[in-house]
Amino acid sequence: MSLVVVGSVAYDGVETPHGKVDRMLGGAATYIALSASYFTPVKIVAVVGDDFAQEDHQLLAGRGIDLEGLERATGKTFFWAGVYSADMNDRTTLRTDLNVFADFQPKLPESYRSAPYLVLGNIQPALQNTVRAQMNGVRFAGGDTMNYWIQGFRDELLETLRHWDFLLINDSEARLLSDAHNLRRAAAKILEMGPHTLVIKRGEYGAILFRKDCHFMVPGYLLEDVFDPTGAGDSFAGGFIGYLASAGIDAGSEGIDFQELRRAVIYGSVMGSFCCERFGVDRFRTLTRAEIDARYDEFKTCTAF
Amino acid sequence: MSLVVVGSVAYDGVETPHGKVDRMLGGAATYIALSASYFTPVKIVAVVGDDFAQEDHQLLAGRGIDLEGLERATGKTFFWAGVYSADMNDRTTLRTDLNVFADFQPKLPESYRSAPYLVLGNIQPALQNTVRAQMNGVRFAGGDTMNYWIQGFRDELLETLRHWDFLLINDSEARLLSDAHNLRRAAAKILEMGPHTLVIKRGEYGAILFRKDCHFMVPGYLLEDVFDPTGAGDSFAGGFIGYLASAGIDAGSEGIDFQELRRAVIYGSVMGSFCCERFGVDRFRTLTRAEIDARYDEFKTCTAF
Repeated sequence: MSLVVVGSVAYDGVETPHGKVDRMLGGAATYIALSASYFTPVKIVAVVGDDFAQEDHQLLAGRGIDLEGLERATGKTFFWAGVYSADMNDRTTLRTDLNVFADFQPKLPESYRSAPYLVLGNIQPALQNTVRAQMNGVRFAGGDTMNYWIQGFRDELLETLRHWDFLLINDSEARLLSDAHNLRRAAAKILEMGPHTLVIKRGEYGAILFRKDCHFMVPGYLLEDVFDPTGAGDSFAGGFIGYLASAGIDAGSEGIDFQELRRAVIYGSVMGSFCCERFGVDRFRTLTRAEIDARYDEFKTCTAF
Repeated sequence: MSLVVVGSVAYDGVETPHGKVDRMLGGAATYIALSASYFTPVKIVAVVGDDFAQEDHQLLAGRGIDLEGLERATGKTFFWAGVYSADMNDRTTLRTDLNVFADFQPKLPESYRSAPYLVLGNIQPALQNTVRAQMNGVRFAGGDTMNYWIQGFRDELLETLRHWDFLLINDSEARLLSDAHNLRRAAAKILEMGPHTLVIKRGEYGAILFRKDCHFMVPGYLLEDVFDPTGAGDSFAGGFIGYLASAGIDAGSEGIDFQELRRAVIYGSVMGSFCCERFGVDRFRTLTRAEIDARYDEFKTCTAF
């Protein structure tokens, strides 16, 4: 069933120990949409400038992504540049030019409003809330946030979270949001804020899915080479929600199948791991569903006992 | 089947965010032996001073540990003191008094020499090798080492590793030993050094078991409170080798059952997690096999999909 993805479509400049790319397609909505497109029909809501390249438009369209909600504004596309540390566990932002993204007001095309699944990339929490309000009959909605919003826009964020079914954040964000260092305690506090489903991402160490009385842990996939971690978290989100949408999971029904949520976390991990194998979105140019399913099976082989 | 444990029996002074204990029973051999004693008969080889308390002797004896190889020398028992960082991922050594441990020459009682299992705690690699040489017909032997030996006693260590079936080290030690940052590459290089089985411990993030063409990953158990991580790695080692000894696994036979090794890694993780729940060895004063098996099942519930 179809999934609406809202967030940034951007150009990124990235330097890692494996190389440097001055300008390439990026942005949370781009990674989420590309990743989710392997599982379910995707509709994107974002804004780009008049410099947005036809080939990048083609990459998204070629994956069957509905681009009716991709607004073209006068000016330049959002640009971000950063450099990763030697072990790639830290990164430093070198430049952030919001450009047309500064005035982004997500408007959902009529044809998007009845989509049953919604994922909101990391944007201003009040904006995330306006999107949620434009939809009718969403069955499963949620998204991502970041330290900047947690620290500076806490009230808006808490109001937004009240309406979410799921939240996907990393461990440092979970600690900041909950003011608890221990992840089990942090999760318990966050699950009181609205979402009934929480995924805490731990980078190379994997992820943990939390619900009220249970949790599920997956270690990170062991890659031989991490070329570029940019977009890995968003690719995780795309695999997670994309799989749930394909399975037709419904937050409104009598309890969610925890087995399906576990599988969704594995698909998220699989998509995050593929993303790191090439610079930017390059891995999605060649990735096949068969490769995804093979890695899902590999996760089982490497974790079952 | 019986297991010989060689290493330090010590007194520790430990400070964590949860409290401070000036002097309590510690040492690698102590933790390994206590942990392994839940699975298999254990025989300890270590040296203590004339200050070694009767109640500490009793704790070990009470767990059925054979203390014929616990030498009593004139002088004081090895003393170590350290303080942990706020998140307990780092620790600073405040004091190391080798005392009687400085002249430790492990001597195996006759009754120990035909034991089929051997685990060598973190001591000088050449000493580890003399122990191996005193045994007849060992079926599965290995142990631990640390940065100090990897950097300063590399040749002795490499000679020792040639005779080991398994090595248990943490991720930073694996990187140092192999001169490879990526754990998959690091493991491949270490498996060329002698051991056919390698466990890389990652603290709160779990552990990875590597063999030539396969690996198995387990995430760390999510504790609500980590009181004191001292001894967690050694408790892991005790659970790992203790379980293998109880299962009668044989490195000399036609291939080792990988399923049994996976289970051993889970039991190692279980024992490491219990160790952190109290200061020093305190958790082992009350821990029961039923609690261990319940946590093993909990690992399955939290990781199966």
